[in-house]
Amino acid sequence: MSHPTRLRVTVWNEGRHESTQPEIAALYPDGIHGAIAEGLRAELGDDTVIRTATLDAEGELLSEAALVDTDVLTWWGHMAHQDVPDETVDRIQRAVLGGMGLIVLHSGHFSKIFKALMGTTCSLGWRNDGDREQLWSVAPHHPITQGVPQPLVLEQHETYGEFFDIPTPDELVFISSFSGGEAFRSGATFTRGRGRIFYFSPGDQKYPIYHHRDVRRVIANAVAWAAPQSRELPSDRQLR
Amino acid sequence: MSHPTRLRVTVWNEGRHESTQPEIAALYPDGIHGAIAEGLRAELGDDTVIRTATLDAEGELLSEAALVDTDVLTWWGHMAHQDVPDETVDRIQRAVLGGMGLIVLHSGHFSKIFKALMGTTCSLGWRNDGDREQLWSVAPHHPITQGVPQPLVLEQHETYGEFFDIPTPDELVFISSFSGGEAFRSGATFTRGRGRIFYFSPGDQKYPIYHHRDVRRVIANAVAWAAPQSRELPSDRQLR
Amino acid sequence: MSHPTRLRVTVWNEGRHESTQPEIAALYPDGIHGAIAEGLRAELGDDTVIRTATLDAEGELLSEAALVDTDVLTWWGHMAHQDVPDETVDRIQRAVLGGMGLIVLHSGHFSKIFKALMGTTCSLGWRNDGDREQLWSVAPHHPITQGVPQPLVLEQHETYGEFFDIPTPDELVFISSFSGGEAFRSGATFTRGRGRIFYFSPGDQKYPIYHHRDVRRVIANAVAWAAPQSRELPSDRQLR
Amino acid sequence: MSHPTRLRVTVWNEGRHESTQPEIAALYPDGIHGAIAEGLRAELGDDTVIRTATLDAEGELLSEAALVDTDVLTWWGHMAHQDVPDETVDRIQRAVLGGMGLIVLHSGHFSKIFKALMGTTCSLGWRNDGDREQLWSVAPHHPITQGVPQPLVLEQHETYGEFFDIPTPDELVFISSFSGGEAFRSGATFTRGRGRIFYFSPGDQKYPIYHHRDVRRVIANAVAWAAPQSRELPSDRQLR
Repeated sequence: MSHPTRLRVTVWNEGRHESTQPEIAALYPDGIHGAIAEGLRAELGDDTVIRTATLDAEGELLSEAALVDTDVLTWWGHMAHQDVPDETVDRIQRAVLGGMGLIVLHSGHFSKIFKALMGTTCSLGWRNDGDREQLWSVAPHHPITQGVPQPLVLEQHETYGEFFDIPTPDELVFISSFSGGEAFRSGATFTRGRGRIFYFSPGDQKYPIYHHRDVRRVIANAVAWAAPQSRELPSDRQLR
Repeated sequence: MSHPTRLRVTVWNEGRHESTQPEIAALYPDGIHGAIAEGLRAELGDDTVIRTATLDAEGELLSEAALVDTDVLTWWGHMAHQDVPDETVDRIQRAVLGGMGLIVLHSGHFSKIFKALMGTTCSLGWRNDGDREQLWSVAPHHPITQGVPQPLVLEQHETYGEFFDIPTPDELVFISSFSGGEAFRSGATFTRGRGRIFYFSPGDQKYPIYHHRDVRRVIANAVAWAAPQSRELPSDRQLR
Repeated sequence: MSHPTRLRVTVWNEGRHESTQPEIAALYPDGIHGAIAEGLRAELGDDTVIRTATLDAEGELLSEAALVDTDVLTWWGHMAHQDVPDETVDRIQRAVLGGMGLIVLHSGHFSKIFKALMGTTCSLGWRNDGDREQLWSVAPHHPITQGVPQPLVLEQHETYGEFFDIPTPDELVFISSFSGGEAFRSGATFTRGRGRIFYFSPGDQKYPIYHHRDVRRVIANAVAWAAPQSRELPSDRQLR
Repeated sequence: MSHPTRLRVTVWNEGRHESTQPEIAALYPDGIHGAIAEGLRAELGDDTVIRTATLDAEGELLSEAALVDTDVLTWWGHMAHQDVPDETVDRIQRAVLGGMGLIVLHSGHFSKIFKALMGTTCSLGWRNDGDREQLWSVAPHHPITQGVPQPLVLEQHETYGEFFDIPTPDELVFISSFSGGEAFRSGATFTRGRGRIFYFSPGDQKYPIYHHRDVRRVIANAVAWAAPQSRELPSDRQLR
């Protein structure tokens, strides 16, 4: 299969912080999903169809039919991981194994879908003191790092630290340092079945990370990279 | 932590074929678990404590307390994967992430515990025509291949073929050819959390594979290799 | 950098068998390079500029300037590896580290350039009895396997067997079985610096392998996959 | 082969800084090699035979016969990489491919032997401002990290930064942050042939790094880990 004429991306955001915390709504007036979608439009242009969805609206974008029509799903969640039903997680897992790309952002490391695909706790060290984070590419040959400055600098961000309990990535793409001294594997790819997965740690809700030009570039590169080569859904029997 | 004086191994076998199919009971009068345990004793000697358990007896060897006291668990299952309760699978997964070694044998590729740790369907191609299988080491430096002939020959065995839907192994150890033309990744290691996992495909119940000296050597090498370096159990919250 | 409008491929062939052995010249009237180039043209179409070169003609296509203008180099050699000057090998190595793609075919495993990039002996087992070879994809998600049947069958070919002394590949793509019982890692990718490398074992000169449609598809896919994302030549000082 | 009764380690040090720069001789009155050897003795005890050698003395410890009798070689060099003869490098490379372990320390990243085994430039970013370095384990399951604090802290050290031009490691073990903001892959393993290789970046000559207890522990763990499982020397023909 060659790529469809237009790449179809679904930007999923839990969406709870924006509706309950005014300071976060102020950073993201269109929601975290709105900012991510805006970045994708700016970077990828008109050849991409972008839909956004949150836990409390457009949940149907995670239906079986919608996932079949999605080339790449980006995932942001934090305080409401448990509110995503297990059946939805199963559907997404099958879609990924069948070829759909998945970009997991920041606190999405603790989402049900990421844990299910990794098989590990996906736990990590963290503290939120507004440290300066620098992301260093360890993969200058990789499509995801093209056009991204070395290092990519976040003036203020939450700190994530090792040990990050994930399987050995297929490709390590970024490692971060924090002004407080931590180091972290902040960008990594995984292949599961026919699906490509990219974990990218920037994006705490308290900072305007998804308005950052270089972060947008990385996410756009990752979405393009994760587009399926071919698709073939596994049966339920295979997965359970 | 240095290794405990004596390595504690639990050999788990579903145990249903032996009790319902006389021709398999004839091949394995002490059960598949009995044959595997005998091989481990012969290869690893008195410094190893070996316990055996089946679905219908000694299920308590998969209790929380028993797993904490187990350095390495070997797993054989085929027709009754669904009879292993989900809570048991959760316990084993946490034990592996916390450092316990796990050796998954043959049709164990479709066990709940292997799927949970891999995050993929773990499906593969198969047919059972008594083909000749040759296992070729691609890792002469690896402890698991020491003392094993190149190739390791199984005169008659079930055929497993690619595509085998597993994540990229940490280390590929064996690849097999079959007289009918298939090729298969028949030995592979994975690290998940602090735990070492080895998948080894020999062992269909219709052939006396676990009486084979070289197969026993591989399993014994794998058990020694998978012994924990250190242990630290993740919390339930981390896993779910 | 986005890809140049037209992908520039140089097909290198030692070219000695064709000029000294009539039976091989009969299989490849335009040389092995001619057959490979024809396959690339058929598969990749007009957006690709293909040049061919051999040891005894067009050696200037391995000059510094020519390599800078080459996106991907394919390499076939066998009896005259030692006739490639060390300075040429150094130039190619720098070009690859700087981003040029490299496709190493069959007996090219023993070329100076492949050994220099791998750091190992690259030795393997072999015998030439016209066995049937089946190449099985272990990477259905990979661009290199798109449109390739599972398995890819070569009715008659030289046998290569493990142990193949290469570093752990970045991605294992194909494993082969042979009717005589061998197994072999027949397709594997490596990243070195900014350059992508694909080793593909089909192509003994005694068989019409490069006229095989599926082999052509794999090589064309690999050439497209190996196109540079960006280029930056290392200095001589860095390499020596 | 089981391990020989006593592990035989050769600690190689270029040895030029100590003889020409008094401030470095003051830090290392017994040479850098002396400090490394002392750490190994303290950590590994009497079951280890440790020999030391420098460019200007005991060069015979890199002879063919001596290498055959060496289980693990540790390598420190900086200003005189070019003074190691190419024939010596060839011998060491063959010894590693044949099973000898190799621990490459700090500026040894630019040694001829490391470059030959990696196939890349092994270049990296650096500045020497006495930054605080923190090494974070990303492999709590690995023998090399046992008994090492998380993080391992160097109060003052030279800064190394990405991009570090090495092939994808077999296992990434440590990543570092520096107070000036850099991040670096500071501990990584590679397998080449039958040999195990560990690169570990601590050890600039201007700081008393090899007197640091935790650094000594890592090096001792690495030496034990790199001990050969089996040995078989490749022929010259295979390598060239």
